[in-house]
Amino acid sequence: MPSGEHPQRSWRPSGIVTLLTDFGAADPYVAVMKGVLLSEAPELRAVVDLSHEVAPQDVQAAALFLEAAWSWFPAGTVHVVVVDPEVGTERALLLVECGGQAILAPDNGAIGPLVAGAHDACVRRVGAGAPRVGASATFDGRDRLAPLAARLASGTAPDTVGDVFDGWRRLDVPAAAVAPDGSLCAEIVLVDRFGNLITSARREQLAGAQWSCEVGGRRVAFARTYAAVAPGELVCLVDSYDRIEVAVRDGDAARELGLGRGAEVRLVRAEAAGESV
Amino acid sequence: MPSGEHPQRSWRPSGIVTLLTDFGAADPYVAVMKGVLLSEAPELRAVVDLSHEVAPQDVQAAALFLEAAWSWFPAGTVHVVVVDPEVGTERALLLVECGGQAILAPDNGAIGPLVAGAHDACVRRVGAGAPRVGASATFDGRDRLAPLAARLASGTAPDTVGDVFDGWRRLDVPAAAVAPDGSLCAEIVLVDRFGNLITSARREQLAGAQWSCEVGGRRVAFARTYAAVAPGELVCLVDSYDRIEVAVRDGDAARELGLGRGAEVRLVRAEAAGESV
Amino acid sequence: MPSGEHPQRSWRPSGIVTLLTDFGAADPYVAVMKGVLLSEAPELRAVVDLSHEVAPQDVQAAALFLEAAWSWFPAGTVHVVVVDPEVGTERALLLVECGGQAILAPDNGAIGPLVAGAHDACVRRVGAGAPRVGASATFDGRDRLAPLAARLASGTAPDTVGDVFDGWRRLDVPAAAVAPDGSLCAEIVLVDRFGNLITSARREQLAGAQWSCEVGGRRVAFARTYAAVAPGELVCLVDSYDRIEVAVRDGDAARELGLGRGAEVRLVRAEAAGESV
Repeated sequence: MPSGEHPQRSWRPSGIVTLLTDFGAADPYVAVMKGVLLSEAPELRAVVDLSHEVAPQDVQAAALFLEAAWSWFPAGTVHVVVVDPEVGTERALLLVECGGQAILAPDNGAIGPLVAGAHDACVRRVGAGAPRVGASATFDGRDRLAPLAARLASGTAPDTVGDVFDGWRRLDVPAAAVAPDGSLCAEIVLVDRFGNLITSARREQLAGAQWSCEVGGRRVAFARTYAAVAPGELVCLVDSYDRIEVAVRDGDAARELGLGRGAEVRLVRAEAAGESV
Repeated sequence: MPSGEHPQRSWRPSGIVTLLTDFGAADPYVAVMKGVLLSEAPELRAVVDLSHEVAPQDVQAAALFLEAAWSWFPAGTVHVVVVDPEVGTERALLLVECGGQAILAPDNGAIGPLVAGAHDACVRRVGAGAPRVGASATFDGRDRLAPLAARLASGTAPDTVGDVFDGWRRLDVPAAAVAPDGSLCAEIVLVDRFGNLITSARREQLAGAQWSCEVGGRRVAFARTYAAVAPGELVCLVDSYDRIEVAVRDGDAARELGLGRGAEVRLVRAEAAGESV
Repeated sequence: MPSGEHPQRSWRPSGIVTLLTDFGAADPYVAVMKGVLLSEAPELRAVVDLSHEVAPQDVQAAALFLEAAWSWFPAGTVHVVVVDPEVGTERALLLVECGGQAILAPDNGAIGPLVAGAHDACVRRVGAGAPRVGASATFDGRDRLAPLAARLASGTAPDTVGDVFDGWRRLDVPAAAVAPDGSLCAEIVLVDRFGNLITSARREQLAGAQWSCEVGGRRVAFARTYAAVAPGELVCLVDSYDRIEVAVRDGDAARELGLGRGAEVRLVRAEAAGESV
């Protein structure tokens, strides 16, 4: 979309707001944001915790969580991202419209994968507006983003809150690259609660061919389900992120392999490796 | 209930869905399920987290949590259990109707204690239905259970989604047994956040008699409340699960006794032990 | 407010109930309370988790969380506090009315900072009422507080549930004291997820002067935002609690300084220290 145009889009709020932060579950910061949302959007239908366990300041994880989750919500949903180490500075606040939904986030790269994957994303820079009385320099989630989300959830159209903006900060999120021999050089981008190793390689990069996986000095065969291998065995599959994942059935691949984010994963065509999966 | 009959029950959804998973709080899997629920059941009133901190693949804990919590919800509630190591295989999905509520779970034993304790439970095997476009082999919670829960919460009657089924998998959940001398041989089945040791012995097994408890080489007296003993002291009581529990006032019995799930707890009639509580 | 008077206040429920407990996220206790609330207040709009990660029996943390969060909710909200080591004993249950909201809590000190900070707080002792059938001696949150919150959220006026009561238990929550030389002697009262050290000194105690901070043998300058210093540097600021906080930009001050709750923090007028911030 040409960034100079202001498209005419209709906005019908779903009454749903999601929150994605690095606040954790213990402190009252999330509850305070919900108090603001419920105070300022009396007709709100639901506030959903996308996650609050993003590690402090881990913008990459927030970006991948947002990309993975946003499209499962109905049109008219407002997603609020508050992973914001630069709160209180001049960094912009952004609004992304895509798929009939709205995403609010500080300009720190968190929106990158979502925008790259959406076919109709339009990024705006949120106008500063008048600061609210008593606004802090430490909690824009409460003082700026929640009130704005409440307005959007109450019917304010996204295209009225700021101008289209192309200068938002890009973040280098790892992507799997095709090597000269046709293999895919990927890396681990997330480790989930099960110890599953989620990689930068995406389902569509496999393109119907047969593959196997090399990770931590081990060769791992692909299967369709975790249960296709025996308990304790390594398995490689297309996961709930639509990404290539290395797992241990009924176990913890991160612990088993001693690997974490950033570790290399190589996907090799099975025929090249003399195998058929 | 004869398993061959299809009872006529009326179904009036409460608009409440609960989720019980081993997904943890960090990953976006729970939020994605909520997105599906809210997308497909626009009139949903509330989605309640029953727990997401069941240890990975710990079906027994899920079974006990479900048994403890379901009956506190109003008729018309849909409970969804996703502790599902066999996702993607041919294992069945089950629907239990009881007390005017509906419980959805993979066929892995999680429904056992609930069915055993309910007087009117009817178990159905959910029909496979047409797979939705893009359905994964790794996340039936998102692709099959949440859409079905949304349909139930929107008015679809439970008795239309599958046939009555008696071949569901039983799980050996520990129960306290009466020894020849009249004592109860129990074991620890859960350790809660406070370090309280919840046992397999149930309130009704005490039947009005006076008891004391032997655990970890210690003899512990019964009381009505935690505060009936001095801080730091062991106490045995009927707890919020309606089970016999060993606790330390203002402390952590699991740590104090060095015991966890599976450890033996013996309940002895106080008169037999020469005591009166 | 004279404690003998029964003020006439109108009560219009917002349909929002918050829960603040030390139950943690794993066990089903919170879900059970929500089941009771949703069963008994069918028109409930939202149940918000204020926090369930208060450390077991940590009444001081509950008191500070409650004070920090309550005022961000709309009039008509009911807040329920269940940090309750004395459950089952004769300790009273309290209801605080302030700012058009209602707070329910056991009489253990948790309401202290909230009452001290509110200009119109009125404390009542909740009448015992008839115990519900099957009520436990271990879970008043489920058996007494949730049902009462449901009634309040459904329209029962707070001033009908008990008599005004001044004998509630005070808890010694640390406050920053002014030393003879004009400095402030404060201490750390909370450590948040980021390792930020939240102190007993409040924004209004700074009164426009220039200050610096002494903590753990280090001198730390004030700034307006975390990002005003280089990554890894210590900074002192007015935080989201409206308190003085010591933080490390993009880091963890608790770990960096090896300090936790109770540690001393001294706030010194910058001019006295020969500085200008």
